[in-house]
Amino acid sequence: MGQSSMSSEPLIEGVTLTVLRQIGDRRGAVLHMLRSDAPEFIGFGECYFSEVVPGSVKAWKRHRVQTQTLAVPVGRVRVVIYDDREKTPTSGQLQILELGRPDAYLRLRIPPGLWYGFECLGNAPALLANCADTPHDPNECEKCPEDDPGIPYRWGTR
Amino acid sequence: MGQSSMSSEPLIEGVTLTVLRQIGDRRGAVLHMLRSDAPEFIGFGECYFSEVVPGSVKAWKRHRVQTQTLAVPVGRVRVVIYDDREKTPTSGQLQILELGRPDAYLRLRIPPGLWYGFECLGNAPALLANCADTPHDPNECEKCPEDDPGIPYRWGTR
Repeated sequence: MGQSSMSSEPLIEGVTLTVLRQIGDRRGAVLHMLRSDAPEFIGFGECYFSEVVPGSVKAWKRHRVQTQTLAVPVGRVRVVIYDDREKTPTSGQLQILELGRPDAYLRLRIPPGLWYGFECLGNAPALLANCADTPHDPNECEKCPEDDPGIPYRWGTR
Repeated sequence: MGQSSMSSEPLIEGVTLTVLRQIGDRRGAVLHMLRSDAPEFIGFGECYFSEVVPGSVKAWKRHRVQTQTLAVPVGRVRVVIYDDREKTPTSGQLQILELGRPDAYLRLRIPPGLWYGFECLGNAPALLANCADTPHDPNECEKCPEDDPGIPYRWGTR
């Protein structure tokens, strides 16, 4: 059930995209991320940050159990999601998103079962935050190389 | 019960300070923040970010109910905590901490009942992350001006 409060572009099944509040302040903004009373809140397992330096790609990863809840409070990131699940309406589709302030400060939820990766856009390091619903467990996630021929997306081509 | 895995300096009662893992990677580090199986985990209410621009101070605030769990993944921040509770062993004391990578990437827990504030150090904006144990509720927190004479700390004096 792709849901979006921002764009009418269809999302891969299970992916959601929600506009987050940025409360402006001359001293620095307050940036919402996730509340336990949000309609889409599942549970809290772990919060961590992934820095991405300019020109770098972190891809691909797929979780069997864990749901990712992502936002980019610093810098600019391209996130690509690939659905190779069988029997979903969006099977075989790619989703390409840009996250960053001020125009794309969004919460992106990626359910288990989808391949995803991200890269830094622009000239400054970016910070991707994740509030995942379970603590990190290396046994429930798979990785494949960023240039894996099974995924029809080539990083660094714009 | 001040606990610290980093410093032997005594902390204000109830404040904890924990060294967080920074997993180095040429593409950008992975930075731990909080897991639900951490010994000090109480509950998840809200995660948000507070940006602080150079030269700015965000102070003072005190919560009646909410516990703050803070880390600084970007930039450098001074956090000051003031204990004006009655009957604590640290009543009347100030705690001054610096948070930032790579040498002070720490998780700081501030229990309810303490005044706290922070300021950006250095020439780049900083980002303070908070995983609080309840969602934001304006009725459970108080503010007072950054130069309130009742708190024996003057911001911007180094």
